[in-house]
Amino acid sequence: MKDTLLKVDTAKVGRNIDRMIDIAGRHGLLFRPHFKTHQSRAIGRLFRDWGVKGIAVSSFAMAEYFADDGWDDITVAFPFHSGDLEVIQRLTGKINLNVITDRLDLIPLLPEEAGVFIEIDPGYHRTGLPPENTAAIDKLCELIDQRQIFKGFLCHQGGTYSAKSKAEVEAMHERTRLLLTGLMDRYRGAYPEIILSYGDTPSCTMASNFDGIDEIRPGNFVFFDLMQVNIGSCAFGDIAVKLSAPVIGVYPQRREIAVRAGAIHLSKEYVDFGDLGRIYGLPVDGEGQPYGGAKLARLSQEHGIISDPKWLLGSLIESEISASVDILPVHSCLAADLMPHLHTDTGEVFDTMPTALKE
Amino acid sequence: MKDTLLKVDTAKVGRNIDRMIDIAGRHGLLFRPHFKTHQSRAIGRLFRDWGVKGIAVSSFAMAEYFADDGWDDITVAFPFHSGDLEVIQRLTGKINLNVITDRLDLIPLLPEEAGVFIEIDPGYHRTGLPPENTAAIDKLCELIDQRQIFKGFLCHQGGTYSAKSKAEVEAMHERTRLLLTGLMDRYRGAYPEIILSYGDTPSCTMASNFDGIDEIRPGNFVFFDLMQVNIGSCAFGDIAVKLSAPVIGVYPQRREIAVRAGAIHLSKEYVDFGDLGRIYGLPVDGEGQPYGGAKLARLSQEHGIISDPKWLLGSLIESEISASVDILPVHSCLAADLMPHLHTDTGEVFDTMPTALKE
Repeated sequence: MKDTLLKVDTAKVGRNIDRMIDIAGRHGLLFRPHFKTHQSRAIGRLFRDWGVKGIAVSSFAMAEYFADDGWDDITVAFPFHSGDLEVIQRLTGKINLNVITDRLDLIPLLPEEAGVFIEIDPGYHRTGLPPENTAAIDKLCELIDQRQIFKGFLCHQGGTYSAKSKAEVEAMHERTRLLLTGLMDRYRGAYPEIILSYGDTPSCTMASNFDGIDEIRPGNFVFFDLMQVNIGSCAFGDIAVKLSAPVIGVYPQRREIAVRAGAIHLSKEYVDFGDLGRIYGLPVDGEGQPYGGAKLARLSQEHGIISDPKWLLGSLIESEISASVDILPVHSCLAADLMPHLHTDTGEVFDTMPTALKE
Repeated sequence: MKDTLLKVDTAKVGRNIDRMIDIAGRHGLLFRPHFKTHQSRAIGRLFRDWGVKGIAVSSFAMAEYFADDGWDDITVAFPFHSGDLEVIQRLTGKINLNVITDRLDLIPLLPEEAGVFIEIDPGYHRTGLPPENTAAIDKLCELIDQRQIFKGFLCHQGGTYSAKSKAEVEAMHERTRLLLTGLMDRYRGAYPEIILSYGDTPSCTMASNFDGIDEIRPGNFVFFDLMQVNIGSCAFGDIAVKLSAPVIGVYPQRREIAVRAGAIHLSKEYVDFGDLGRIYGLPVDGEGQPYGGAKLARLSQEHGIISDPKWLLGSLIESEISASVDILPVHSCLAADLMPHLHTDTGEVFDTMPTALKE
């Protein structure tokens, strides 16, 4: 037995990819999946088997990691900064590279072959220009169009991650869509080639109207997680990764068990999950279904505490010597970032991007 | 320029080690620093320069990582499980290895050369036997003493991390100390060689009475962090690590800047920090002092948002092209776990333990 492992169900991954390709196809959208969720070349190749050609990533190191595995159409959907210019130069010589920005000052430093999206902030207030700031957008369009390939507008409505229902996601999506298609109308005359790139997993999974959107870039859907169950994007059975954690202590009196599953495996991400309150993960059976009432209730650096494990507790007391528990993560992107490999049911081991590439 | 980097101030590290050695010396305590905070052989060697001989770690992979760098007296202060038996066998042939447990069933599987501590739960409810469960403790003592080297009792009072003042830490420490010395009194007659191993950073930094305690195992003090400032264990100027994060966006209208510093660099750890409310980090000047009012207010996977940066914002607008911001972490152990290296002021680069060893 090894220690704590991140397991992946490739059949579920396949179904999740298939479903998103179907959504893109029905709405006539370009599908550019975000690879920051899995950071794995092997999972990337599954997408390639489905005919996917273009991808999004969240760093230039990640772009190089996937370019070296044969991907030649990559959008780095994270604002570039001056420290990235060297690798941008390297990559534009090799692949079709798109970058995103909301800044004028860096444009003159970009190579001419780079595709450039202007990032729009739809009210999530992370990065990007507010769509109403057309004075700044005008200047950016002009400068980019003079020098590089002006690709269009790109937006991430991360607000959907705080939504509590399909209706809330749909409302947020529709409002964002209206803002962005309004913006496209304003600029399409002058720049007829531009496209609108959009989309987080909740919107892409649950919205019904994609009129005016050209491309979607969801990432999380490939694995899903408890946050997505909570929003309504998926069911428990769709979640394709789980952390297998050795049991390190059994405490019947306080109705808790301790497992080796901490912040170094799952991050400190939590979600308020209905009647269960705050959870850091959910222990599940072989079918990926939760044990009623049991939850990963507390995390420290390496310890996780599962409270009220009921049936689980009974069976563990029997087989305590080498028991382990499978735990659905709250945020699969962070678990995949933290763990060095993805282990398949058939014994394959997929590397994830080396941590050294974070710098 | 590189990307986001974790910087370490080795002079501050030295002062922090020196101060803790002084505390141990004044109270006649064995000093066994916990290396899970830094996970770095280079930082480990600084401790060796100060005469430290024995260390604590939080996994058997970490024990091997440091054993391979010459450490030969290691306590793995995390409950072992059956999956660890192979590496325990390997290590006991090479070094003085201590393990901790609260379980009878695994004792017969341990090699005879292993030192074994019984873990006691002082009310933190993570792992360990409650001290009042003397029936179970009796049996464990007996079985361990028959087979291995019974080292004594070990305890982590993690409750001090939720304390809000020195008085609260001292009260929790004193209550724990009374429980544990009572337990030692009960067993010292039968097992005269046993010791009491204790201690988290807040207690070791702030408590004044260590009577009856033999060994302390603090870890975090080597770097400190905002959580420790909040508890009262240290001042801002004592924090020896900071994340250097490139500025990726400047938003004067909403009085925010965006940096490349997210959950993949800092985890999702936060702390409620007085008037500032919830913070995920604090931007600081060259002296390690916060800019009044500015805080790392939100985190996503790779983005961090610094709100109300006042003076910072003004100077950034001037030099925005290649600006970066230094950020004190909420929890330095997690930042060091997430980042591949520690960068010193003199340009040295210290590796941290490879992520592959998490499995």
